[in-house]
Amino acid sequence: MANAIRALAMDAVEKAKSGHPGLPMGAADIATVLFGRVLKFDPAAPHWFDRDRFVLSAGHGSMLLYALLYLTGFKSVSIEEIQRFRQLGSLTPGHPEVEATEGVETTTGPLGQGIATAVGMAIAERHLAAEYGPEIIDHHTYVLCSDGDLMEGISQEAIALAGHLKLARLIVLYDDNHISIDGPTSLSDSVDQLERFRSAGWAACRIDGHDPEAILAAIETAQTSDRPSLIACRTTIAFGAPTKAGSEKSHGSPLGAEEIAGARKNLGWTSPPFVVPDDILSAWRAAGARSREARAAWAQRVAALPAETRAEFDRRTRGEVPADRIDAALAEIKRQLAADPKDRASRSSSELALGVLVPAFPELVGGSADLTGSNNTRPKGMPAMSPDDYSGRFIHYGIREHGMAAAMNGMALHGGIVPYSGTFLVFSDYCRPSIRLACLMGRRVIHVMTHDSIGLGEDGPTHQPVEHLAALRAMPHLQVFRPCDAVETAECWALALASNHRPSVLALSRQNLPQLRDATILGNRCVDGAYELLAAEGGPARVSLFATGSEVMIAVAARERLAEFGIPARVVSVPCFELFFDLPEERREAVIGDAPVKVAVEAAIRQGWDAIIGSHGAFVGMTGFGASGPAPDLYRHFGITPERVAEVALSKLQAL
Amino acid sequence: MANAIRALAMDAVEKAKSGHPGLPMGAADIATVLFGRVLKFDPAAPHWFDRDRFVLSAGHGSMLLYALLYLTGFKSVSIEEIQRFRQLGSLTPGHPEVEATEGVETTTGPLGQGIATAVGMAIAERHLAAEYGPEIIDHHTYVLCSDGDLMEGISQEAIALAGHLKLARLIVLYDDNHISIDGPTSLSDSVDQLERFRSAGWAACRIDGHDPEAILAAIETAQTSDRPSLIACRTTIAFGAPTKAGSEKSHGSPLGAEEIAGARKNLGWTSPPFVVPDDILSAWRAAGARSREARAAWAQRVAALPAETRAEFDRRTRGEVPADRIDAALAEIKRQLAADPKDRASRSSSELALGVLVPAFPELVGGSADLTGSNNTRPKGMPAMSPDDYSGRFIHYGIREHGMAAAMNGMALHGGIVPYSGTFLVFSDYCRPSIRLACLMGRRVIHVMTHDSIGLGEDGPTHQPVEHLAALRAMPHLQVFRPCDAVETAECWALALASNHRPSVLALSRQNLPQLRDATILGNRCVDGAYELLAAEGGPARVSLFATGSEVMIAVAARERLAEFGIPARVVSVPCFELFFDLPEERREAVIGDAPVKVAVEAAIRQGWDAIIGSHGAFVGMTGFGASGPAPDLYRHFGITPERVAEVALSKLQAL
Repeated sequence: MANAIRALAMDAVEKAKSGHPGLPMGAADIATVLFGRVLKFDPAAPHWFDRDRFVLSAGHGSMLLYALLYLTGFKSVSIEEIQRFRQLGSLTPGHPEVEATEGVETTTGPLGQGIATAVGMAIAERHLAAEYGPEIIDHHTYVLCSDGDLMEGISQEAIALAGHLKLARLIVLYDDNHISIDGPTSLSDSVDQLERFRSAGWAACRIDGHDPEAILAAIETAQTSDRPSLIACRTTIAFGAPTKAGSEKSHGSPLGAEEIAGARKNLGWTSPPFVVPDDILSAWRAAGARSREARAAWAQRVAALPAETRAEFDRRTRGEVPADRIDAALAEIKRQLAADPKDRASRSSSELALGVLVPAFPELVGGSADLTGSNNTRPKGMPAMSPDDYSGRFIHYGIREHGMAAAMNGMALHGGIVPYSGTFLVFSDYCRPSIRLACLMGRRVIHVMTHDSIGLGEDGPTHQPVEHLAALRAMPHLQVFRPCDAVETAECWALALASNHRPSVLALSRQNLPQLRDATILGNRCVDGAYELLAAEGGPARVSLFATGSEVMIAVAARERLAEFGIPARVVSVPCFELFFDLPEERREAVIGDAPVKVAVEAAIRQGWDAIIGSHGAFVGMTGFGASGPAPDLYRHFGITPERVAEVALSKLQAL
Repeated sequence: MANAIRALAMDAVEKAKSGHPGLPMGAADIATVLFGRVLKFDPAAPHWFDRDRFVLSAGHGSMLLYALLYLTGFKSVSIEEIQRFRQLGSLTPGHPEVEATEGVETTTGPLGQGIATAVGMAIAERHLAAEYGPEIIDHHTYVLCSDGDLMEGISQEAIALAGHLKLARLIVLYDDNHISIDGPTSLSDSVDQLERFRSAGWAACRIDGHDPEAILAAIETAQTSDRPSLIACRTTIAFGAPTKAGSEKSHGSPLGAEEIAGARKNLGWTSPPFVVPDDILSAWRAAGARSREARAAWAQRVAALPAETRAEFDRRTRGEVPADRIDAALAEIKRQLAADPKDRASRSSSELALGVLVPAFPELVGGSADLTGSNNTRPKGMPAMSPDDYSGRFIHYGIREHGMAAAMNGMALHGGIVPYSGTFLVFSDYCRPSIRLACLMGRRVIHVMTHDSIGLGEDGPTHQPVEHLAALRAMPHLQVFRPCDAVETAECWALALASNHRPSVLALSRQNLPQLRDATILGNRCVDGAYELLAAEGGPARVSLFATGSEVMIAVAARERLAEFGIPARVVSVPCFELFFDLPEERREAVIGDAPVKVAVEAAIRQGWDAIIGSHGAFVGMTGFGASGPAPDLYRHFGITPERVAEVALSKLQAL
């Protein structure tokens, strides 16, 4: 059965003239034990909620996964799709893509992401098990990872978090083949992985990765452990290949016809390319059907839940966040704001919004990378998750932004949870690879990122984002919200929550902001990404002022100043570029307006703004890094003031 | 003496109404032993090349460092500057900044960066010691790090690399205070750090961080180890504070007048704020003068070097890369290209350039994050560095992009080395926090980033950068080069090498590119960032085509196609936005030209291009993520072809 994987991998890579045969051939025995005898899954129901999750962290070994999906009988991967490996539009892309192929649990390829995502899945499992009981939620998360996964720093954040939370249902099979692209891993690595994992609170052992009974025994032991488990499986990369086995030459290139012929001989595999003998295919298909009864029994248990519980469970597993519930929550937040209008930092406004949203949406699981009080992501009364009580809905991620972002992806992929959490905006750089995957996968994760400009003050340029808004807006699919006051903050939260196929970043201020919007007006003005906050008065607008977040109040003040000079000006708030750019051109143009002078204000670099103000529009913002000092001093120093905005507008008007 | 640090830290944070008193007070005893009895340094010569390096990885504890610099007698930090802690324009910003304050070895604050940067310093020390001998290079690198530093994933990459390379001169003092911002570290962490470091090949021990003799003994033991050393110093955060000691309340806020009064009493410190008693200051100043003789002796040894060796040593330690040597190397590369013109991937062109540069510039130390053969960063004959031979100039960094980038910063900061290394462009996301620090510090590090677009083909969207050029161009000070052929690649290498205060990224293709430039023409056309590669023929230009890298050949072909329609078009190559934007407006406008239609072509998103083509210019590129498939299929699929470019230009012309 394992040789079927090896043959398919060799053949598909050879036909594609591109790919990675080494890992599938080396890890075939591990995968055969796991999918053939252990994994709880049903190819007929790829989305069965209580299935075991399998994450191929070493995504370059995608043919391993595609072979398994084909062999066990997933509809998504036919033999034709395997023959179209790595071709445009196939269901078998170069690295596994969750949106492309049913049966793939997460998109992998950038190393370290898979194992860190799996930690999130394992958290989700424990959390939902605490909520719905073991009759409903009772599965494992398995990971196959490579040396590269374990060298990436994110792996340390992931294993430390998993060890701390005692995620005993997380079992990592490490394809310990001693080979990476440059050659033997001894060129660059001397880490004792077993000791490393043990130091993080894991169980760890080493076995022969080509011995099925040893693999099975190790997995069974791991299943009974009270800690997450690492099973280092000593393997030979490209097992069976006559000259390239055990060599980096088999890692990322086709083996070549001669080598493949030799491997077929070594493995005793006589079938032609892409043909799996009937008896072997039948055995695989039988293995794929192993859990069918378990699934039926599970469905009965779900059906037997009290009606209300079942409805809520179904809703959550479908990832459905009802619009009317969001509307009601938004109305409640606005009611609170109307009752208590005052200046608030948008991070505090976010906390106020969460105070309504968290009770209203049990699927929200929050957290922070050790900045809980600064990010304001834990509204009063929200219990923390701990190894003793997984029902807690707030996660202390530690100083692990990258691991946090990946774990959030894992929770969103697992389903039943809408994860949000917090760090400083400047540290979005630390979690960018995981945010990118959320974009690529189209998953609802919500990043609360506070201290979003030089407005954070004294901590200085290492902590002041200036390029991060642009860099995040550059990422396809990501919604970057930068609300200007408490009302917009609530509206942006509502939009992020409603976006079930897009991740969001909420960029929030440390410093206080006045409430610019009337909280008694319902509806969501942020839905178009930009809108006229204040119209021109005393005539058609001569100046349009565009701003986001904490700079909207500066634009508002500049408008007043311009009025003193008799210049009618309007203010457009732009809480979300991406939603604005999604509008039809006509509506976009209507918001941009036809005032002869356009000025944008944002305490960040200009890049990206030209699409709104035009390349001849004026921009008041940053041109380089910030500095350490009190925030008001910095705004003055960098010239981001109402006076300067008005001055720039006036000089533009004069130049017309 | 330690209490002088504590008092200054309390007072400065209190006066600034902002800052982190907890760490300086907790780590004062460690710092006093290190600076008072161990560290080889001379406040009168902050740049003494053979000084020990001290990295405050926990940069938020900046007052610890400023207190030490003041107490030991650095000119940069007067008591007035300490009183101006965290004020705009002071020499004592919120986090240590290497460019702001003499005596600060590296900018820190984003956690994990310091320890990873220190690994690069320790590598530099060993490498230069191998080259110049222990008489000239013989120092240690000390790090003070916090829990947060060790939770960040980058720390794992750093310690694994240091352990593998057996960097015995690296000694990390871990301020093991069990407190992070959210509260006790037990909220989020259960890692046994000693075992973790040991698993990475380090020596590790735990001591009482308030016992000076234990600290000294541990450091002396570490100095004799054949491995890097971790010394976990069990401390009490805010040691001496009556109610906030041992609590997260002291981490990041002023203690308050009452608490400070109590701490003064507890510590027996009777001086008023910002006053250090004469006897204690004298003791500190004497400690600061400890190594004066050692420095004089060292200077004599340097003076005694053979004239040529000394001249080269001086040149390298000054970071001087002579223009004439660069010109000569560039001429030699062009000679080779002229002699053997052929299609080359720009990554191969880069390898060819390195074949000339590496022998010409002994300060170049290269590497790759396990993609040596793909990044083409190791020209023939370049020996690898190993724990047995530090003279090697190529570093196998392992799959550790972030640790690599930080280590490069450390080498550049140490001096004597110009580091370059390689990964895929998409993985620039993994090392962004370190690249940002290189920008902030203005250090010459050169990132070779290959596989720079969908042109990498089958590996698919996880590996295809689309937003990374924009995201990197967003970063202040960074030079992002994307050369279009072998000649431009050589010219961009020359510019990167000459930029002694700016980091560079070279974005290079996997796929072959024709040689578009005449290699027999000397000089460097890339110096302005953009230039007219092909003028319009048959009349004034109706269309200006702008492109970078692998898309310049598409623009060239589109120009030919337009010529068939009788439309004169010119092609502008834009190898470096940043250099182009540095030009005076007049020269920029001259390059942009006045053709009525402007079209940009880049296999990436549009963001940033409006500054060149205007917001009404046309853009042919990507609007979302790529896909898995052969590169030519992808270029067709996404419509990045000469036909499409010509079509877009024609339709723009018709609309005029």
